[in-house]
Amino acid sequence: MIVTLKTGTKKLAVNEVIRRIQKLGFKPELSRGAEHIVIGVIGEGNKAVTHRGVFEAMPQVESVTPISKPYKIVSRVFKKNNTVIDVNGVCIGGDSVVVMAGPCSIDTKENLILTGKELKKAGVQVLRGGAFKPRTSPYSFQGLGEEGLKYLAEVRKATGLPVITEVMDTRQVELIERYADILQIGARNSQNYDLLREVGRTRKAVMLKRGMAMTIEEWLMAAEYILAAGNNNVMLCERGIRTYETATRFTLDLNAVPVLKHLSHLPVIVDPSHGVGVRDYIVPMAKAAIACGADGVILECHPNPAQALSDGHQALLPADMGAIVKDLRRVATSVGRTLY
Amino acid sequence: MIVTLKTGTKKLAVNEVIRRIQKLGFKPELSRGAEHIVIGVIGEGNKAVTHRGVFEAMPQVESVTPISKPYKIVSRVFKKNNTVIDVNGVCIGGDSVVVMAGPCSIDTKENLILTGKELKKAGVQVLRGGAFKPRTSPYSFQGLGEEGLKYLAEVRKATGLPVITEVMDTRQVELIERYADILQIGARNSQNYDLLREVGRTRKAVMLKRGMAMTIEEWLMAAEYILAAGNNNVMLCERGIRTYETATRFTLDLNAVPVLKHLSHLPVIVDPSHGVGVRDYIVPMAKAAIACGADGVILECHPNPAQALSDGHQALLPADMGAIVKDLRRVATSVGRTLY
Amino acid sequence: MIVTLKTGTKKLAVNEVIRRIQKLGFKPELSRGAEHIVIGVIGEGNKAVTHRGVFEAMPQVESVTPISKPYKIVSRVFKKNNTVIDVNGVCIGGDSVVVMAGPCSIDTKENLILTGKELKKAGVQVLRGGAFKPRTSPYSFQGLGEEGLKYLAEVRKATGLPVITEVMDTRQVELIERYADILQIGARNSQNYDLLREVGRTRKAVMLKRGMAMTIEEWLMAAEYILAAGNNNVMLCERGIRTYETATRFTLDLNAVPVLKHLSHLPVIVDPSHGVGVRDYIVPMAKAAIACGADGVILECHPNPAQALSDGHQALLPADMGAIVKDLRRVATSVGRTLY
Amino acid sequence: MIVTLKTGTKKLAVNEVIRRIQKLGFKPELSRGAEHIVIGVIGEGNKAVTHRGVFEAMPQVESVTPISKPYKIVSRVFKKNNTVIDVNGVCIGGDSVVVMAGPCSIDTKENLILTGKELKKAGVQVLRGGAFKPRTSPYSFQGLGEEGLKYLAEVRKATGLPVITEVMDTRQVELIERYADILQIGARNSQNYDLLREVGRTRKAVMLKRGMAMTIEEWLMAAEYILAAGNNNVMLCERGIRTYETATRFTLDLNAVPVLKHLSHLPVIVDPSHGVGVRDYIVPMAKAAIACGADGVILECHPNPAQALSDGHQALLPADMGAIVKDLRRVATSVGRTLY
Repeated sequence: MIVTLKTGTKKLAVNEVIRRIQKLGFKPELSRGAEHIVIGVIGEGNKAVTHRGVFEAMPQVESVTPISKPYKIVSRVFKKNNTVIDVNGVCIGGDSVVVMAGPCSIDTKENLILTGKELKKAGVQVLRGGAFKPRTSPYSFQGLGEEGLKYLAEVRKATGLPVITEVMDTRQVELIERYADILQIGARNSQNYDLLREVGRTRKAVMLKRGMAMTIEEWLMAAEYILAAGNNNVMLCERGIRTYETATRFTLDLNAVPVLKHLSHLPVIVDPSHGVGVRDYIVPMAKAAIACGADGVILECHPNPAQALSDGHQALLPADMGAIVKDLRRVATSVGRTLY
Repeated sequence: MIVTLKTGTKKLAVNEVIRRIQKLGFKPELSRGAEHIVIGVIGEGNKAVTHRGVFEAMPQVESVTPISKPYKIVSRVFKKNNTVIDVNGVCIGGDSVVVMAGPCSIDTKENLILTGKELKKAGVQVLRGGAFKPRTSPYSFQGLGEEGLKYLAEVRKATGLPVITEVMDTRQVELIERYADILQIGARNSQNYDLLREVGRTRKAVMLKRGMAMTIEEWLMAAEYILAAGNNNVMLCERGIRTYETATRFTLDLNAVPVLKHLSHLPVIVDPSHGVGVRDYIVPMAKAAIACGADGVILECHPNPAQALSDGHQALLPADMGAIVKDLRRVATSVGRTLY
Repeated sequence: MIVTLKTGTKKLAVNEVIRRIQKLGFKPELSRGAEHIVIGVIGEGNKAVTHRGVFEAMPQVESVTPISKPYKIVSRVFKKNNTVIDVNGVCIGGDSVVVMAGPCSIDTKENLILTGKELKKAGVQVLRGGAFKPRTSPYSFQGLGEEGLKYLAEVRKATGLPVITEVMDTRQVELIERYADILQIGARNSQNYDLLREVGRTRKAVMLKRGMAMTIEEWLMAAEYILAAGNNNVMLCERGIRTYETATRFTLDLNAVPVLKHLSHLPVIVDPSHGVGVRDYIVPMAKAAIACGADGVILECHPNPAQALSDGHQALLPADMGAIVKDLRRVATSVGRTLY
Repeated sequence: MIVTLKTGTKKLAVNEVIRRIQKLGFKPELSRGAEHIVIGVIGEGNKAVTHRGVFEAMPQVESVTPISKPYKIVSRVFKKNNTVIDVNGVCIGGDSVVVMAGPCSIDTKENLILTGKELKKAGVQVLRGGAFKPRTSPYSFQGLGEEGLKYLAEVRKATGLPVITEVMDTRQVELIERYADILQIGARNSQNYDLLREVGRTRKAVMLKRGMAMTIEEWLMAAEYILAAGNNNVMLCERGIRTYETATRFTLDLNAVPVLKHLSHLPVIVDPSHGVGVRDYIVPMAKAAIACGADGVILECHPNPAQALSDGHQALLPADMGAIVKDLRRVATSVGRTLY
């Protein structure tokens, strides 16, 4: 960590910073530039960074620049090899790219069974479906709750597909853990730290979506909460960030894929359905996600989009998924991956 | 609500949209433009909007444009007069502008008592202090928990100042309700809908901070969750949004103040401390907040910023608050408000 | 175009809007909703939109919603088939994906010749090189000017590669036109309308980069300036937008690729070098660009990045380009395109 | 400037960086942290920063962190006292706050004269009016050109008000210089460096608007172009940045006001009309601008907004300006400024 002092800082005030560094157990290294005195704070690992605020608060300090990353267990420095998560035999983060699909909200058992069977046939490997839904409006459909979880379990039994569903509240973790194979933390709860700790106490796989305005660093820090609580089975899911552009619902930030693969060993999934929010643009962006190194994509499907209880405008037809999976497999192969 | 069809939509597909509108109980009004057929969906209040997704999902639909706002109880159309919230005798949302202040995190009882007494003397009307803290890093200080709440209660007793503190998890609501006068929902939990519903079931005043990437419309929808659950004592707090600019920690969006006062009857508070994150810029922005119509400001104070356990770099000195309150009062007067 | 009136607008004020619509030569269609009166403005093509401001300025108007797009000649509604631009035999916008490469700034003749020859051998089809450089700092190297253009012409002669270079000022158009095969309009000049008109008067191919904060609609409107001035040989180049994320220099918005291909007939190029600004992430993003439908990519190359006069940190080595082109060809093939 | 090396960089590669630093004439200072080697680059003033790219391009370099600011003449370090620009007797940047007003586009001589006289009476000190207009659409009104400049000159003669008007193209500078007292560089040309240099060669006052996606640092660098060319009479104008929020046309970033006053000695003007784009929010934001330290505001006025040729929706009535100026004066007084 580097502490830059204001131009013209007096000797007394410089010494005060140096003593503070020493008192915290770090070694100060002073360097006099033309305009600024700069003091390096040398210590073990990234410990110095956690004291960043102490120095920022001192009036003689111009700025504080971290050199080490603030995260640790999620970092590729900490663990060189890719984390591969085995979810009932489906490996996420390995050579093979994974396709997850299913409805945004679970509506009827019939629709879910129909969808599950078609998706299984199409080569999809994980079934998604929301039972508890975070909706912008209190007057919108809020999900079937436990009823929906039961449908998911039935379709898993019928198809063998592992299932992923969202958990929104610490009080739901115990219930959802009983039904789901992967716990999804949605964008709106990506910095709900109590919830992160709670899913960190389970041993289920967790898919952590990126918050709408989350930097990649904050996202990795949120993942660190889950790993620090003891659960290493975490995958990250890019789902679009908020920008000024309105032609797409969000701006799917595919740049995050190579950045995350560089900084972290965790698997990276991409959700183009929520990312762009327009049916016609989803498959091209799913291809792009795989081309730049994503370990999987998650797609919204509904047998009758116009009757879907949420996000019908971005739902693909289960009947089209066979062709889509084939197209994605071709792209995966072109970049040296497989897709079963 | 207006449904625009794609150029060249065939009669059959047009009729399908019309029938869907009628089936949902609305009246269709068709209008043929040069390039597009446009169908108005006429019904009572803003009900049509909740069916927006149905039409967006139809392949012949180009776009759907809401005419009515999606929120209701928080709207100034629903209630013309400003909501004034009485918190132990401090009125928020009335003629008088309110100054809230206190430490980001509560650290020691001594510091909090010292701060509380100085703030009371300075003319501050509400004491803030965090006991449960949402921290980006799992390795940072996470707050004193209930111990901190007890200190808050003591200072309230000693000074008569009502207190505001953050609630982060549904399971904490019952506990914090017993100690706090105002429950704060932080930016990271601004779309934690279970938490919004839970504080909506209490009768405490709630301060709902804006999420970092929340539109004003989404913010009002989040407030609607609390009011819809039965609690009308809601104030909104602008605390900075995420933009590309890095000279300030966030971009404090003061434009939101006149926009919110126009759209809603709820009081509007501004938090320049988190919004800009640099001590020198906080007071000018607090003045600006009052100049454009805010009902109050909330400021971070700590008697020894360099020893604060969080956000010391943006903490003001309690000893300076008397002069600051005087300066803010002068601005309040210049725009026809008071500040006690 | 749809004009929504404020709730409670009186009859007289409604009639004023209607008369204004009629006076401008359009047909008003009135529709009474539950909260708002809505008036359709019916006319030929997208003419009504150009009068948008007239209605926005009327105090009784709540909002104006365009139905038709504001652009015309660049739209796929206007021209169904893809525009294919032939630049000295290299076709841009057809079945084959194009790779352009070269240094950010031209420095020495030797470097440029060396680079040009290697790139030709690697299968690159267009040589890029900046002679006039828009630099953030007035103290940075500003480009070789005409000297650089001469080097470009020499390399073209030696290799047969067409060349692309940036034009920054209306007064340079005539000069650069004599040397370059493609005129590049940079992000910082993307709404320099005099310059757009000026390159619109030439018959050279133009590559219009997206401004850092340009919506896709504004970008198409900027292209419309060039086409409206008589030059149809326009390709669009996505190069990253400004967002809050700092892990990459800009946020390369690949979503723009399928959106543009849907809305417009113009070819779409992607510049991952400027978009991400970090060497390691450029090739993955180039692959992603092709996977989601781009007609080409433009890459920065320099034989000695640490001695490049600008943007060396994002320069690839010419010696690596053969392998890169092969990798990109594989992705192109996987999505049904070719790459020569 | 600080160069951070990648974890595990070998001695040879470290030495290569050190030699490069020495070769450029700077002094290297090496510091070994727990994970990274960090090398300070010590030299005179901010010269090291201009070589930033050299180091960023080296493969062993993780990142480069500037310590000194990249701008110089515009910096408050370079010049401690506020720059006060005297425009025909109106002082901008001194104790007194300045109000500029007038139409977005000049339409008729009659309207301009009428407006000018009312504004003069109201206490407005500078008349604005656009003769050359940057319009998003090539089909919109593009301004009256020289005819408009002549009207401006006439009104100046009649009222004594100095006039400000936009220059969009290097070829227009000579013409506009003959008519205008202040040359305005619009947001879309804020990084049109040839234009900045050209107005830098005049001795006219220049108002440099902030680009829609410009950081404050880039903005100061753009101003540096003008000062470096010899013209010190530069004022900066905040006019709203692009963010995800759509309730206002742009997000007027008032935080920029105290930041700029801290970093630079140049006067700061705020344009709330373009910043928010909604008539009702303009005056509150003008008050806020003055409250946080702006040296002036610029407002759009038109005697008949619905007939204005551009931006009528955000135009105030000249007849209301007397009351508005009074309100602004009250706020100016409350923060220790005057307003004549």
